[in-house]
Amino acid sequence: MFRTHNCGELRLNDAGQEVTLSGWVQAGRDFGGLTFVDLRDRYGITQVVFDSDDDAALTERARKLGREWVVQVTGTVRERTNKNPNRPTGDVEILARDLQVLNKSKVPPFTIEDESDGGDDLRMRYRYLDLRRSPLQRNLLFRSKLALAVRAYLSGQDFIEVETPNLIKSTPEGARDFVVPSRLNEGQFYALPQSPQTFKQLLMVAGYDRYFQIVKCFRDEDLRADRQPEFTQIDCEMAFVTQEDVLNTFEGLTRHLFREVKNIELGEFPRMPYDEAVRRYGSDKPDLRFGMELIDLNAVAQGRGFQVFDAAELVVGIRVPGKADLSRKQLDALTDWVKRPQVGAKGLVYVKCNDDGSFKSSVDKFFDQDALANWAQSAGAEKGDLLLVLSGEAEKTRTQMGTLRLHVAAEYDMIPAGEFKPLWVVDFPLLEWDEESNRFHAMHHPFTSPKREEVERMLTGDHETMKSLKADAYDLVINGAEIGGGSVRIYDRGLQEKNFQLLGFTPEEAEEQFGFLMGAFEYGAPPHAGIAFGFDRLCAVMNGQSSIRDFIAFPKNNQGRDVMIDAPSRIDTDQLRELNLKLDL
Amino acid sequence: MFRTHNCGELRLNDAGQEVTLSGWVQAGRDFGGLTFVDLRDRYGITQVVFDSDDDAALTERARKLGREWVVQVTGTVRERTNKNPNRPTGDVEILARDLQVLNKSKVPPFTIEDESDGGDDLRMRYRYLDLRRSPLQRNLLFRSKLALAVRAYLSGQDFIEVETPNLIKSTPEGARDFVVPSRLNEGQFYALPQSPQTFKQLLMVAGYDRYFQIVKCFRDEDLRADRQPEFTQIDCEMAFVTQEDVLNTFEGLTRHLFREVKNIELGEFPRMPYDEAVRRYGSDKPDLRFGMELIDLNAVAQGRGFQVFDAAELVVGIRVPGKADLSRKQLDALTDWVKRPQVGAKGLVYVKCNDDGSFKSSVDKFFDQDALANWAQSAGAEKGDLLLVLSGEAEKTRTQMGTLRLHVAAEYDMIPAGEFKPLWVVDFPLLEWDEESNRFHAMHHPFTSPKREEVERMLTGDHETMKSLKADAYDLVINGAEIGGGSVRIYDRGLQEKNFQLLGFTPEEAEEQFGFLMGAFEYGAPPHAGIAFGFDRLCAVMNGQSSIRDFIAFPKNNQGRDVMIDAPSRIDTDQLRELNLKLDL
Repeated sequence: MFRTHNCGELRLNDAGQEVTLSGWVQAGRDFGGLTFVDLRDRYGITQVVFDSDDDAALTERARKLGREWVVQVTGTVRERTNKNPNRPTGDVEILARDLQVLNKSKVPPFTIEDESDGGDDLRMRYRYLDLRRSPLQRNLLFRSKLALAVRAYLSGQDFIEVETPNLIKSTPEGARDFVVPSRLNEGQFYALPQSPQTFKQLLMVAGYDRYFQIVKCFRDEDLRADRQPEFTQIDCEMAFVTQEDVLNTFEGLTRHLFREVKNIELGEFPRMPYDEAVRRYGSDKPDLRFGMELIDLNAVAQGRGFQVFDAAELVVGIRVPGKADLSRKQLDALTDWVKRPQVGAKGLVYVKCNDDGSFKSSVDKFFDQDALANWAQSAGAEKGDLLLVLSGEAEKTRTQMGTLRLHVAAEYDMIPAGEFKPLWVVDFPLLEWDEESNRFHAMHHPFTSPKREEVERMLTGDHETMKSLKADAYDLVINGAEIGGGSVRIYDRGLQEKNFQLLGFTPEEAEEQFGFLMGAFEYGAPPHAGIAFGFDRLCAVMNGQSSIRDFIAFPKNNQGRDVMIDAPSRIDTDQLRELNLKLDL
Repeated sequence: MFRTHNCGELRLNDAGQEVTLSGWVQAGRDFGGLTFVDLRDRYGITQVVFDSDDDAALTERARKLGREWVVQVTGTVRERTNKNPNRPTGDVEILARDLQVLNKSKVPPFTIEDESDGGDDLRMRYRYLDLRRSPLQRNLLFRSKLALAVRAYLSGQDFIEVETPNLIKSTPEGARDFVVPSRLNEGQFYALPQSPQTFKQLLMVAGYDRYFQIVKCFRDEDLRADRQPEFTQIDCEMAFVTQEDVLNTFEGLTRHLFREVKNIELGEFPRMPYDEAVRRYGSDKPDLRFGMELIDLNAVAQGRGFQVFDAAELVVGIRVPGKADLSRKQLDALTDWVKRPQVGAKGLVYVKCNDDGSFKSSVDKFFDQDALANWAQSAGAEKGDLLLVLSGEAEKTRTQMGTLRLHVAAEYDMIPAGEFKPLWVVDFPLLEWDEESNRFHAMHHPFTSPKREEVERMLTGDHETMKSLKADAYDLVINGAEIGGGSVRIYDRGLQEKNFQLLGFTPEEAEEQFGFLMGAFEYGAPPHAGIAFGFDRLCAVMNGQSSIRDFIAFPKNNQGRDVMIDAPSRIDTDQLRELNLKLDL
């Protein structure tokens, strides 16, 4: 037996007991004839003391232990003279009478502390050492606990967890599929699922009524910061429901999770139509933890001879409270920031509402104090506030301003810590016109239904009508992060065919790729709707963290490689030959 | 709103209430002016009645409903005159006042009943209809409930569920890897995991102490009956434990599952060394629900001039109780059965212990009544019993007899129904000598540790010594099915290197393929051990079923295709070109 207790559980009332602990040497120090060793495992840290008066040889061996060595210690629990109130085990120590080294350790390349001195590359390369650090252990424990809470809650609501296959037929969804050559079917390929969408719809057709799954999904996208090629979804589908039922069920789940795992009461989630979100926040996932809503300034800004504004479809501003004192340098930095290609604005106009009632702006040449006072009034700005103004094509400019709003809030620490602001964004458009490819894309996905009252318009309307169709599609947003999204689905073959047609599929293509689903619709498909939550993101957001990477045990790095496992690897030619790849490149 | 209640919940005390139900039309029948419709969903069946005296038009519409149409009915709950005691809802019916057809259905290709009239192919092709049948719904609900119970139990024992990656480095394990071309890493491939083995060991090095995961694994094997290319494991690993700890923990889990989900008390699991299992049952996964142990007959069968026995390394028999009355035809069928290439025996000898005390055997020419009486005594056979005897090379013959033992028990219904006989098989050999390839294979896997007291022999012994090394490796067997297997692992770099060397790896190959793990062993790897349960198999065995396929929502058929999804598919050349496949075939 390696231990009688773990390193986190001994207390004062265990004093006098003989115990055996195993763990890692966190730290050691000598003091007089005593040697103290902090022994660490997942559960905590316990102090072990070796007394050279008791056993000089044993103490000598303890002195030679190194950091991260794995040892087993037997001894007697006793009260500490020098208690450590910051540790649950801080009232006691083990007076050692035996020590066994279970495994040695090289000197770790960085310290195993809450704040590590390891750089990102080193931490990723030695992920097993990084994962020993408390913050990461807390994150992964949180994730495990959260998954359990999700399952318990949904099972309690009659949801059944069904595993859907990972080796499936390739279907054109949003992103690129990972493909898997099939040895048994010469020249053919499986795809890894981007989501279990069609399978969960088939489960509804099969009468499973309420399905969920916490499931890995795969997208062969270019790796960007915080995007992983494999990610985890809480995937759900319900039959005989309306949008209202789905929203209530998953608002219930989310509230339950915050209550159960974070002890936070969220209250009722507000709802906002997509159009309103874009108008007020320049984003379909507004962060409601702070104000700075977008203000339409066309009425006060145009017609004054400033060519840039006059030519613009939209002049839009935000009021940054109390920031009239930004320096020239700070304002220049903001201007540079909006001009970055990722944002794409041509320039940034500011108006400072000075404490003395005067205004200072970057467009003083065109706007006198009265005109600027007008702006300020339109924006509800008061003395000490700063207005930031962008102009241009309406949609783009709103998006740019939405991005700037987030940047300013983060840059100037205007986001209250520890707050959670959930929001349902509803009434998404069904289709999105893509100028570049000259075709419609599905805003959510091709299985999303138009609102019931829009079906007639969809079946009979013209091109412009299609652009205005709304869907029963919804996103759950928390603190500006998209946690989940879903929709009411089409369950009628004819309507699904029409949708594929609008999306540019020929009837043959639609049949070949989705015939199995449309066929199922002909055998008694119930009305159904669903939602999927990004589980990695939910973990991060619930802990107030912006990166998902430290909630994943073995993430991929930016080259798509597993940390230290260094996947993928070159497989040998024999193996490939056996796959009978008929590639015809 | 589509429903106020589901089709399984209305009872007599709901009488008088107005309700709305939605579901599938299971059956309809007309009786006088009444039309009865059985409405079905996952939760049950409720009878709906339409009365033409009340509403002739409505009843006319009800008459025209077809099987599997999806309808919504509103009406009043009332007591049935003709109660159906076989249905929880059988005391009531709904007197309908409104009917809406939500979706029609073509006539299904087979009936949606417990015993379907659909053949296997049809049932697989229309899996969404097959999945509507009660037995399958029960199976998948069972699976969901079982997974929940596993997670609750293990979490309660401080296990943390950690998701390990699916796109990993290819490592040579037992079976062939599925590979996934990487677009970002030209000419390189990910592999899909055959198990999360190395990742869970890294988690132990990382101090996670107790890990589990219910996880999909992948093996690109030729499809045989009841073997799926993707399958689900309950995968576990523990640090600072011995074999004893693992066995106790997972015996606890298994007992809990049977108690919780099946209401069956299993009691303590017996343990049997591998050598004993093979000797007594001719199998490393003996089915203990019935006797018929293997009996060594060399002493009584050899030296009597029967060349076949005399030349054999082993003569081995089983006593089939009460089967002396098998006919010539039945015995011939058994002989043919053992001669099939899958079994590979040369012939089968029988001895009938007749009720009159005489013996009748297929080798009467060589053995007189006294000699056969001797056999019977050795085998503990009584009047009315049958002895079946095989001979040949010892190991092969035992295996053949183990197979025959199972076949006879199944064929002649000698396996008691509803019984569960768990067994730990322990003390597996570490290595297996393969004559064909002239090398050692790992009996469990290359990370398995020899028993502690065998380490010295392993590091210093000769070739023959290696064959006799025992490992702390164990299997859980229930009713002759291997439910799980695991081992104590190597956690020392030197010992792991030695093991790879024995398995025929050059030091460079070992380093290239497993350097990441051996490197981790140098940074404070704790002693650890683990186990994995086959979740699909566990589901089937707990329900007394031999096939796993009906516990999987969307299994692959024998061509490795998803039922009706018909994966894999040919992906287009552009997509392949983009993958930059440098195949060099």
